[in-house]
Amino acid sequence: MLSEKDIISKFLRPLAINREAQDLNNDGAILKQSNSNFVISSDMMIENIHFYENDDPKLLGRKLLRVNLSDLAAMGCKPYGYILNLGIPKLKTDSWLKKFCSGLKLDQEKFGLKLFGGDLSKSEIVFLSITIIGVKGKSILECSKAKNYSDIFVSGNIGDASLGLFLKQNPDFIVERKLKNFFLNKLHTPKPRLGLSQNLCGYADACTDISDGLILDLKKISSLSNLQSNIFLNQIPLSIQAKKMKKILNDDNYFWEKILTGGEDYELIFSMSKSKQKTFIENKKNNLIYLKKIGYFKNGKGIKIHSYNNFRLNLKKIGYSHF
Amino acid sequence: MLSEKDIISKFLRPLAINREAQDLNNDGAILKQSNSNFVISSDMMIENIHFYENDDPKLLGRKLLRVNLSDLAAMGCKPYGYILNLGIPKLKTDSWLKKFCSGLKLDQEKFGLKLFGGDLSKSEIVFLSITIIGVKGKSILECSKAKNYSDIFVSGNIGDASLGLFLKQNPDFIVERKLKNFFLNKLHTPKPRLGLSQNLCGYADACTDISDGLILDLKKISSLSNLQSNIFLNQIPLSIQAKKMKKILNDDNYFWEKILTGGEDYELIFSMSKSKQKTFIENKKNNLIYLKKIGYFKNGKGIKIHSYNNFRLNLKKIGYSHF
Repeated sequence: MLSEKDIISKFLRPLAINREAQDLNNDGAILKQSNSNFVISSDMMIENIHFYENDDPKLLGRKLLRVNLSDLAAMGCKPYGYILNLGIPKLKTDSWLKKFCSGLKLDQEKFGLKLFGGDLSKSEIVFLSITIIGVKGKSILECSKAKNYSDIFVSGNIGDASLGLFLKQNPDFIVERKLKNFFLNKLHTPKPRLGLSQNLCGYADACTDISDGLILDLKKISSLSNLQSNIFLNQIPLSIQAKKMKKILNDDNYFWEKILTGGEDYELIFSMSKSKQKTFIENKKNNLIYLKKIGYFKNGKGIKIHSYNNFRLNLKKIGYSHF
Repeated sequence: MLSEKDIISKFLRPLAINREAQDLNNDGAILKQSNSNFVISSDMMIENIHFYENDDPKLLGRKLLRVNLSDLAAMGCKPYGYILNLGIPKLKTDSWLKKFCSGLKLDQEKFGLKLFGGDLSKSEIVFLSITIIGVKGKSILECSKAKNYSDIFVSGNIGDASLGLFLKQNPDFIVERKLKNFFLNKLHTPKPRLGLSQNLCGYADACTDISDGLILDLKKISSLSNLQSNIFLNQIPLSIQAKKMKKILNDDNYFWEKILTGGEDYELIFSMSKSKQKTFIENKKNNLIYLKKIGYFKNGKGIKIHSYNNFRLNLKKIGYSHF
């Protein structure tokens, strides 16, 4: 059984080799980039709500960092560092922590982040929380600045993580292992769109990341920007694997509900005016072909979902709620 | 039953009327004091570990802010703002949140703090976490810079919170109501020593706040500064009420163990050289009479506790461990 001091020196100090963290000896860390604007955000992951007891701790560490990084991507910010809060049952500490921290290490190196400090306590269930600090990019991307007639884009395929969660929660629903692993991988290691998000600064008029589901996150932009979203079901980009699942499920309404409201995609959803799209392409910021246009904003309220053929979508819920 | 959106607009947005928080509409907050050095720290409070189900939510809100503020005091920093993470059972949300947020409001106004953002989720037990952001004062107070022959001071009476916890955990131990309330009050609403801590910048050579117990927190300064602490039991400042409890308990060893290792005092423990003490008094920074000299540092290791008369202290543990 390790003591608090042992846990810090064995697992956490190796993640905090940076002058801001001061070897984790003081209560706080000092942010030294004094000429930067810092952006700060926080996301939790709680046992039995966001994950389950038997989930691989390494993947939990990676996902915890990635969902927080996605908040920075949503605003066009660059990663800087993070504060880690860990509540864990006594029995878990040694091997669990080793795996959890190996996941943190892998992804903090991948994304150029530093651990600055945090808090550690025993707890009856696992409680994970990161407060992430980013540095402002060329501008801040916001939810409230969408423009009339701007087109709506997403940065990649939608719904794979949601299908992963569906398969995880329904172990009796049998699909081929390769297909299942594809979706689980999308659920466990989302890709924060940090590079694209930097390029969108100065071009996108509104942006957020899809964490609670495409409909709910788009609704947020719509309502804060006082505009109506118009999206086209047949423009929503789907992976080949999701198209396979559509056939397997054989219930289009159920399928689209999973895709549009399941959340955890961590793709960006943003809007850009026609004129900005032109300069975006001219400046080779990104190939818009890889970004999928799914609709447009216009004066009005709410979200209008344009269906295809004779199919009529009937959504029972609009997204993942934390309550 | 309130939705997440309702909880944010009803309870949290009123706490976040500041431009950094941007009405809590975006994922992150923007820290705008671009010429300041920020200091960042975090403390959690978890149900059944740091508090119990029936504890008054208003007092939990106040304590959560205060223990985080005390981390800033430990480093000589001024309060700036905070990020709030809340995991709460569904059943609790309405009345519980109302009281909890009234506690936050009271103390964020008292201490000049702003709420910047955070995360909200359901959870099986209550999980509270704040990441606090401070602004660097004239200098940063650290744990590792104690000097040989510096005197050791504490900023106020030691052990009252620990006696409060003892009475709370032992409801069959009967003392007069006034006495019990005094100790519970010390446990539930500690006073972060922010004013004093500002004045100590440039004078104290080492400083921390007493959260895990005088012995454990002093041991941290000792070991990081490579010096031996020498403290005198009869110099440890006690409240009149603690002296009463000493008589009631009628077991000096048990009493001193509670006082020295119980933690949660949130007084500052710091060291200052004789010459700095002279200028500290000349510059009227604080009346050293109200700060209690309890010992001194010298070359060596560990902590030497000097007893009184024939009493020999025998500590079974050295402080509060989170594991």
